[in-house]
Amino acid sequence: MNDRLARVTLMRLAEPGDVVMSRLVASQGPEAAVGQIREGHPEPEFARWFAASHRRDPSGAQRERLTVRLERMFVSWAARLETAEPARDLAEGERAGARLVVPGDCEWPTQLDDLGDSRPHALWLHGEADLRFSCLRSVAVVGSRAATPYGTHVAAEFGAGLSGREWAVVSGGAYGVDGAAHRGALAGGTPTVAVLACGTDIAYPSAHHSLFAAVRSQGLLVSECPMGAHPTRPRFLVRNRLIAALSRGTVVIEAALRSGALNTAGHAISLNRNLAAVPGPVTSETSAGCHRLIRQGTATCVTTPEEMIELVGAMGDDLAPEPRGPLLPRDRLDPETRAVLEAVPARAGAGPATIALAAGVGLETVLSCLGGLAAAGYVERVPRGWRLRPGRPDR
Amino acid sequence: MNDRLARVTLMRLAEPGDVVMSRLVASQGPEAAVGQIREGHPEPEFARWFAASHRRDPSGAQRERLTVRLERMFVSWAARLETAEPARDLAEGERAGARLVVPGDCEWPTQLDDLGDSRPHALWLHGEADLRFSCLRSVAVVGSRAATPYGTHVAAEFGAGLSGREWAVVSGGAYGVDGAAHRGALAGGTPTVAVLACGTDIAYPSAHHSLFAAVRSQGLLVSECPMGAHPTRPRFLVRNRLIAALSRGTVVIEAALRSGALNTAGHAISLNRNLAAVPGPVTSETSAGCHRLIRQGTATCVTTPEEMIELVGAMGDDLAPEPRGPLLPRDRLDPETRAVLEAVPARAGAGPATIALAAGVGLETVLSCLGGLAAAGYVERVPRGWRLRPGRPDR
Repeated sequence: MNDRLARVTLMRLAEPGDVVMSRLVASQGPEAAVGQIREGHPEPEFARWFAASHRRDPSGAQRERLTVRLERMFVSWAARLETAEPARDLAEGERAGARLVVPGDCEWPTQLDDLGDSRPHALWLHGEADLRFSCLRSVAVVGSRAATPYGTHVAAEFGAGLSGREWAVVSGGAYGVDGAAHRGALAGGTPTVAVLACGTDIAYPSAHHSLFAAVRSQGLLVSECPMGAHPTRPRFLVRNRLIAALSRGTVVIEAALRSGALNTAGHAISLNRNLAAVPGPVTSETSAGCHRLIRQGTATCVTTPEEMIELVGAMGDDLAPEPRGPLLPRDRLDPETRAVLEAVPARAGAGPATIALAAGVGLETVLSCLGGLAAAGYVERVPRGWRLRPGRPDR
Repeated sequence: MNDRLARVTLMRLAEPGDVVMSRLVASQGPEAAVGQIREGHPEPEFARWFAASHRRDPSGAQRERLTVRLERMFVSWAARLETAEPARDLAEGERAGARLVVPGDCEWPTQLDDLGDSRPHALWLHGEADLRFSCLRSVAVVGSRAATPYGTHVAAEFGAGLSGREWAVVSGGAYGVDGAAHRGALAGGTPTVAVLACGTDIAYPSAHHSLFAAVRSQGLLVSECPMGAHPTRPRFLVRNRLIAALSRGTVVIEAALRSGALNTAGHAISLNRNLAAVPGPVTSETSAGCHRLIRQGTATCVTTPEEMIELVGAMGDDLAPEPRGPLLPRDRLDPETRAVLEAVPARAGAGPATIALAAGVGLETVLSCLGGLAAAGYVERVPRGWRLRPGRPDR
């Protein structure tokens, strides 16, 4: 059994992200790990590591109990090994159009190595894009499945804005923010990457069948689950670490206080990736998670895709434009002229002497300023003096 | 002429916040300042200060030009002094129901001394509440005149929430956020303070006539302008320093990038008061100023009145409740039971052996967990084994 077949086998034996299995593979290599599981019990050294990882200095009885627990795991993995058919899995996956990528392959995204022991054994990819190249400049856009119209609008804007600036979107495949981000990204022309919590051949949710087809043709479906695997809640949670690890930074668009998107945010933080959150109405429960991240200082507040790119992009090169209000014609008046303008009444006219007193400037200054203001359309002469002109340039 | 009459006179001579006049009063006292203006020209020492405040080391010609400028100011103040009638101002203000408060009075809010030279000469107050006492626990609630329905809703919630917790609201008298904050505060029972940019006898905007009446009866109208003075743009801006200085902290509810509320925010920062901003939809221009403050780290992101009180209140005593999502029944399951629950199929049933394989636990564990889960209403027995029960406690 070679490395690829061993890894395909491992995908069938334990749940993705199983730390004990991951440690076994990390310490022994995939082929030896499968061999040891086939034998049905762990090597003494691994059993010692397992005991030590639970207690600093286990007593004899504690060590005994932990060994029993580890052996039970081996039994349950061995039970699955009996039904595993890695060669068939590999052939069927490739027949379905997917490809298997393992550590060491050209397309393997080496940033997943930051996950340490919980790095996936292998990934199934389905789509036209190159995973490693796409994720070099990528942002994870995550958020609530039960997004509001505001959330899906902002997610689509971020997807399109990132994609239009050659940043790939990485997200899940759920309703709400995930779907909207991919749809926005598809409009931008840069590959979009959907990381699934089920086999790449399973369209979950099924209403996203055609969205997944579009993602395959312009981007990639990615999964660490074997073909045919159905999504479960724990799989969603462990899948989230891949979304955070593949991208340069994560932005949470909308998240309630218990949203799974906050789990992705936690992975981004523990991987030292950039984390951002988009604010929303404080009256909306689906923005409460974003606001908590911003208040805690865990996430940077971002309001546009440009601001997100500033966060994850090259320092100094990808600066977002500073938001500025419009420049009003009045801004160009000098302080004295502005003081005179402020002293001109709105309805009934006033003479230059009254205006001079009100503005606190001399009569000569008033006369020269009024001339300029009249020429610029700010004031007009009326029988009783001067007044503001209705419909003047600005207030 | 005594101190009070001199201060009433000064209110007529220069615009509020005029730094040269303020410096003159600070250095000479109000009575001597009025005397010097009556004489029509500054003392040599004051002229030297004026020159030095513009240039570090003025040449003879520069000093000459600055002296001319200062003398022009004295001429314009002297012109206004001719028409000033302080005794009548004082009598008329009191006849209208207002009272004059000057530094040293019991009701003078000493936190205004933080303004240094730009401290107001005196304040006209109109209303039932005590200004100094009310402002001991007060929050400035500011924001856009052109607030959205979201902004006025949040402003009213903050007004009511602060007032209900015995925190006074300080704001202006404008449409939008100001008015909504006062209306909310009136419902809470704590005095609310409206600082106006015109005389306290002028209802501006006039549609707020009845709001001002309510504020007078449950709080205070405050102004540093003489009776009858009309609002001008510069008066709004200098008025903002009073709003920031009277309160323990300022919260910006909604502000576009050029909103006057950002001017109040700037005063709060330069006075070392707490500054907070409420986020809103990133699609709304009237929240862009708030988001810029939060992004810059200038303002703390707050989403509820409690969070604002935590910011300005006593350390440790006024903590806001940590926002938490609902606790789901599933949270109380132990990890093994949760793994079994995840492995139970939704529609077609599965036998305990299949579930054990999927969950990665032993058959005995599955059997005991399924019993508990069935009792709790999570799963049910069907002819082909076990499945999730429709309408179970939570997903």
